[in-house]
Amino acid sequence: MKIRIAILGARGYTARQLIELLLRHPGVEITCLSTRDSDRPPLAEVHPVFAGRLDLRLENSTPDSVADQADCVFSCLPHAASAAFVAQLLDRGLRVVDFSADYRLTDPDVYQTWYGVAHPDPDRLATAVYGLPELFRESIRTTQLVANPGCYPTSAILGLAPLLQAGCIAADGLVIDSKSGVSGAGRNPKPNLHFPECNESVAAYSIGSHRHMPEVDQLLSRVAGQTIEVIFTPHLIPMDRGILTTTYGTASDSCSPDQCMDRMKDFYSGEPFVRVVDKPPTTKQVLGTNYCDIYTTWVRGKIVVVTVIDNLIKGASGAAVQNFNIMYGFDETTALL
Amino acid sequence: MKIRIAILGARGYTARQLIELLLRHPGVEITCLSTRDSDRPPLAEVHPVFAGRLDLRLENSTPDSVADQADCVFSCLPHAASAAFVAQLLDRGLRVVDFSADYRLTDPDVYQTWYGVAHPDPDRLATAVYGLPELFRESIRTTQLVANPGCYPTSAILGLAPLLQAGCIAADGLVIDSKSGVSGAGRNPKPNLHFPECNESVAAYSIGSHRHMPEVDQLLSRVAGQTIEVIFTPHLIPMDRGILTTTYGTASDSCSPDQCMDRMKDFYSGEPFVRVVDKPPTTKQVLGTNYCDIYTTWVRGKIVVVTVIDNLIKGASGAAVQNFNIMYGFDETTALL
Amino acid sequence: MKIRIAILGARGYTARQLIELLLRHPGVEITCLSTRDSDRPPLAEVHPVFAGRLDLRLENSTPDSVADQADCVFSCLPHAASAAFVAQLLDRGLRVVDFSADYRLTDPDVYQTWYGVAHPDPDRLATAVYGLPELFRESIRTTQLVANPGCYPTSAILGLAPLLQAGCIAADGLVIDSKSGVSGAGRNPKPNLHFPECNESVAAYSIGSHRHMPEVDQLLSRVAGQTIEVIFTPHLIPMDRGILTTTYGTASDSCSPDQCMDRMKDFYSGEPFVRVVDKPPTTKQVLGTNYCDIYTTWVRGKIVVVTVIDNLIKGASGAAVQNFNIMYGFDETTALL
Amino acid sequence: MKIRIAILGARGYTARQLIELLLRHPGVEITCLSTRDSDRPPLAEVHPVFAGRLDLRLENSTPDSVADQADCVFSCLPHAASAAFVAQLLDRGLRVVDFSADYRLTDPDVYQTWYGVAHPDPDRLATAVYGLPELFRESIRTTQLVANPGCYPTSAILGLAPLLQAGCIAADGLVIDSKSGVSGAGRNPKPNLHFPECNESVAAYSIGSHRHMPEVDQLLSRVAGQTIEVIFTPHLIPMDRGILTTTYGTASDSCSPDQCMDRMKDFYSGEPFVRVVDKPPTTKQVLGTNYCDIYTTWVRGKIVVVTVIDNLIKGASGAAVQNFNIMYGFDETTALL
Repeated sequence: MKIRIAILGARGYTARQLIELLLRHPGVEITCLSTRDSDRPPLAEVHPVFAGRLDLRLENSTPDSVADQADCVFSCLPHAASAAFVAQLLDRGLRVVDFSADYRLTDPDVYQTWYGVAHPDPDRLATAVYGLPELFRESIRTTQLVANPGCYPTSAILGLAPLLQAGCIAADGLVIDSKSGVSGAGRNPKPNLHFPECNESVAAYSIGSHRHMPEVDQLLSRVAGQTIEVIFTPHLIPMDRGILTTTYGTASDSCSPDQCMDRMKDFYSGEPFVRVVDKPPTTKQVLGTNYCDIYTTWVRGKIVVVTVIDNLIKGASGAAVQNFNIMYGFDETTALL
Repeated sequence: MKIRIAILGARGYTARQLIELLLRHPGVEITCLSTRDSDRPPLAEVHPVFAGRLDLRLENSTPDSVADQADCVFSCLPHAASAAFVAQLLDRGLRVVDFSADYRLTDPDVYQTWYGVAHPDPDRLATAVYGLPELFRESIRTTQLVANPGCYPTSAILGLAPLLQAGCIAADGLVIDSKSGVSGAGRNPKPNLHFPECNESVAAYSIGSHRHMPEVDQLLSRVAGQTIEVIFTPHLIPMDRGILTTTYGTASDSCSPDQCMDRMKDFYSGEPFVRVVDKPPTTKQVLGTNYCDIYTTWVRGKIVVVTVIDNLIKGASGAAVQNFNIMYGFDETTALL
Repeated sequence: MKIRIAILGARGYTARQLIELLLRHPGVEITCLSTRDSDRPPLAEVHPVFAGRLDLRLENSTPDSVADQADCVFSCLPHAASAAFVAQLLDRGLRVVDFSADYRLTDPDVYQTWYGVAHPDPDRLATAVYGLPELFRESIRTTQLVANPGCYPTSAILGLAPLLQAGCIAADGLVIDSKSGVSGAGRNPKPNLHFPECNESVAAYSIGSHRHMPEVDQLLSRVAGQTIEVIFTPHLIPMDRGILTTTYGTASDSCSPDQCMDRMKDFYSGEPFVRVVDKPPTTKQVLGTNYCDIYTTWVRGKIVVVTVIDNLIKGASGAAVQNFNIMYGFDETTALL
Repeated sequence: MKIRIAILGARGYTARQLIELLLRHPGVEITCLSTRDSDRPPLAEVHPVFAGRLDLRLENSTPDSVADQADCVFSCLPHAASAAFVAQLLDRGLRVVDFSADYRLTDPDVYQTWYGVAHPDPDRLATAVYGLPELFRESIRTTQLVANPGCYPTSAILGLAPLLQAGCIAADGLVIDSKSGVSGAGRNPKPNLHFPECNESVAAYSIGSHRHMPEVDQLLSRVAGQTIEVIFTPHLIPMDRGILTTTYGTASDSCSPDQCMDRMKDFYSGEPFVRVVDKPPTTKQVLGTNYCDIYTTWVRGKIVVVTVIDNLIKGASGAAVQNFNIMYGFDETTALL
């Protein structure tokens, strides 16, 4: 008996990557692809790569129609729109993996500050589980609602959590400098994402004002047991996919470089999708995979951690499938290797 | 009477860019292109872009032959090889702009530590002028020997010098995170620079061990009047040209964000090739130009400075021509606008 | 006394490249930048590369205001809009280089068929000169109105004209297969030009239906003295700039490969911006230049010609400046080397 | 009981892609990775993407050691080296899929002409099966030796075979203009494949002299039942993967555009990896897949066919796995969807 899957917001890149992965999953059947538009295009028109592989149309579904067709829903809708829809699915008993930011922040005031709207479903913030299996696997198993992490936060948190938890790195003054491929900015054409604008160019943007910053703050604070406020700068890189995040923090006196590396390896021992590597990694070595590769070194009293992920897989759809596998008792690597 | 120019190491990308610029310079004549190989190829075979524009062969020149043909020499030779040749040119009375690192570091021991060889010409280290016009214009005018700055150091020093000099930013714990196009790595094929390896990929490399780190240390220390040791991480970006450098430092209590910006604007007031901009810049907005665009903001007590340059122009050949113009009394912007 | 220049449609890539070139031209002054929008932005906001270099705002100019400010006008407006404006400038006695297709086709019916609108100024079609100096230099000198050639036609016509004129190649069945960088498609964001769509991808488009096809037909027919109908396929290549055009035609019995090459060299002997090369060229060897490099070989009775240009320079703004130089008696290479 | 697999020449890109695919194949076990070097590196050192996924070293294997470890061998060795090794494996009873050109051409003289060496194993040329399932599926089932097709030939033959077989297109004067990503040129660094050389550039190369030309000739001649000599020009495109091939041929009088399209659809009806599409395709729509998408149209009496493949999958390793599946009775799409 296969799990029936619905995908909301099926036009975008994360949905495309999700379908790609789920088509390899022996335990699921995609039964519903939803869009907020009313044109009902065949999937192959929206994503030509699926011609001949999945014969579905995108539908302008209602919560009821989704509930009729699916057991589990992946929402790739934008923030606010997502929670408004997802809340109704949860009321109908479905399980949900939400790609939007709506259920990531636990404090609705912080949400309102950073996203500019009142939270559509504040009461559920306490029950959602942040979908980073490396930190919250047990809670993911049984939850009805997973808040799938942001791409930048995944790359930053996986690199810093082990060192913060062990007290190897100071909690204040953490600098997170991320470099992302353009697919992270979504599929809607914009002037700064027009090929001749961003090709052959690097840009810093949203310096200290990116919405993923409070998400990293919250998670690292939770890990460290104290309030953490990071300095975060994202950069746009002329490539399709991949995030490389370089973090800088002050090494604590009680920790040596070797202990740092050991700590990292211990923390991720047994993890199926984190590899602690002994050379600075490239995004290409994780391209198309669900891996996060992590490297760490010391420079003049600072710990430098470099992580790489494929932003559409470990940073979005792969993580979602990993969470799904945990929720439904599949082998965690199913459809991901 | 035109200044006769020789270029040593004429096969590489900086030499190509230099020729491109000098062909637009009304006050010079390129008379000698030198290479360490013995094959004497026509320039158009080495750099097809010059077919029909400059009818010279590359020659395996000696110091004597160069001295016969040229008044001023640009050396694009690698470190150690450059000083060995340049020393002989200086002995013959020529003026030199040296692109290599040989005359940048004032301490021969530091040179030996980072470059792994004894300095070939240590006695001249005290007389060379570091060719950053924004800091050392007056000394450049009269020197026989300019040490043309490294590309990364240019991008870092121009961003930090005004703030350090004014005491706006703390001298310790400065983080310099640079992103460079691949031309910065030179023209020799290497596995990691093979197109399918570095395309669609970002890589950090030489973390805390890049040879430009002591160069930045030395210059910033001089500006700040105290010892500075920076944390420097370069990254390789899948594009031909451009460096974007993001620096992070602790804001001093005596300084406000507005003062910071004012300071930056005052410092570069009247500079022909530095623009203080009010939005985070992209490398593309300086592509093909000799400009360095600088942006600065505050995030949670840290000053974040972003600079962009074209690594082959302001980071190498454009800076060299700017230095040349100063040395010979041309308008500083000649051939650069 | 400098020629005063106005540029219509100053927001786009061809206008940006044109300004870049004209800033190096000692005989001109840019006095007016016009846009069809009403927001009057400073040039540096529209094209950040010009910050500190040209202190003008874009204006929503009228024909009268342009006539007050300028002697010569470059129109980068889209087809139909261009002729509507240009006609009024010509009435006021200005000289014009028109980048649009409006004055390229001599037959208004052909124009209407391919562009879908009645020609706004059909009576002047007979007086406009097609701005390919290699073919029509003398007419360009004295004309009031130059129709600047399309980028694809330039690359195709320069490769085929010498062979057609000499009868080396058959007039029927000519295949023109072009590969262009994305800047050729303009600056307006579109789904297929969104970075993650066209990066890492090649696409054929408008096969046999591209508007440059009748332009090539007309010019080659004129050169050959008989009706020519080409088969033309353009392709979109993941790079900013450059066109490489590969043409295939049947070799005539009366011609040998060597004669073919000789013919090509003779035809372009003395031309400042066409180089006949002896190895298949790359677009990079003409990047940023006004050159067209041409290579030709024989394969199994077919003549294969490969040409490369920078689509924004020899394919647009460089050609326009070359035409301007001819019209006003400047050295033809002024601002172009 | 899993089929034991050896891969010869495991350092390259086709081997990497092959391993990627085979790791998803439930019916195989990779038991041997061979290299001609003697350094025995772990796979993860050669291809970091496989860290933690396949714990093997590359070995300098002999035919005997391969025969001990494997049932079926994929050879990614270069031409000549491949047949020399493969012949010994065939003698030992193993089945082989050979990626090199060694067993593709049936005539050893043609091989010697184009590859410059005497064929190492001429007697087996008659028994090898050309591994294009769409044409030779039945022979593949039972053969001991599959000659895996070249990437360009796959893209050209799949587009032309249906039309030639049906007599819709003339057999003479066929023009094949191909555009390929850089991975097709292999993993060894070369000057023209150095990132700053081929990035932002298109190049034509080996015009009329590429070794895939006689391969296309041979296969199309066989399909058409008459001697065919094509005109073939490959181009290098600044992207990792993908081939788009545009072919031009004269339409026969007996055929209409609609019949042409019908013929194409009929021919590939039921084929799992060929899709006849109704819009010009992009290489991106088949990126990472084993599909060949085909589009055809008529322009002024010429039939234009456009095909797209991922050169490393349908053009190499995917085709090899498809052939393997046929040889061993697996579902043909196993590990390929």
